[in-house]
Amino acid sequence: MTDSQCIFCKIAAGELPAKVLYQDEDVVAFHDIHPAAPVHFLIIPRLHLSSLFDVGTEHQALLGKMLQLVPRLAREQGCDDGFRTVINTGQNGGQEVFHLHLHVMGGPRPWKKQAP
Amino acid sequence: MTDSQCIFCKIAAGELPAKVLYQDEDVVAFHDIHPAAPVHFLIIPRLHLSSLFDVGTEHQALLGKMLQLVPRLAREQGCDDGFRTVINTGQNGGQEVFHLHLHVMGGPRPWKKQAP
Repeated sequence: MTDSQCIFCKIAAGELPAKVLYQDEDVVAFHDIHPAAPVHFLIIPRLHLSSLFDVGTEHQALLGKMLQLVPRLAREQGCDDGFRTVINTGQNGGQEVFHLHLHVMGGPRPWKKQAP
Repeated sequence: MTDSQCIFCKIAAGELPAKVLYQDEDVVAFHDIHPAAPVHFLIIPRLHLSSLFDVGTEHQALLGKMLQLVPRLAREQGCDDGFRTVINTGQNGGQEVFHLHLHVMGGPRPWKKQAP
């Protein structure tokens, strides 16, 4: 399921431009357009889930795939010395786009204080 | 596999005290002893994995289980308005304890600026 009003669904569908670094049948990874660190990319499921609030046991495999991709893609982006992974959920969690996404940030410090 | 020198392995084994909020055969969740937000708990696998750098496709189900638990436990802790999920990996990622752990933070703002 996709949401025709959702910018991340549009990116996943190739209808909006993005610097894609990885994609397969389930997930898409692309660079954040407002990077908070030298390396800052997002991993999203193609499936439109608004946030972690929307996930259930049926999404366990998808979530595992997303998280397991993190170190592989981070290494490919040169983050061999480490990186941060952040998921903001809901308004009080600082979520801005309501399509589940996982931030990965790395590269030389300092990063922006308000890193998501 | 556990690491006899690892404080999180000891917590998982019940050899060090912790305010445990959930546990099963695979994972343990407990409150952070230095909370950065009104609600701040950690989810760890019982399996000793140093960080996300150590995970492979064989850990996909475990990672999915950890992440799928996040919203359920966050809700149980009263974070219905949102929460943040953070995984620090490696030195440049700000990781302090080298047993894979996932931070979940929520509750009334402001939170500490240096939230992990």
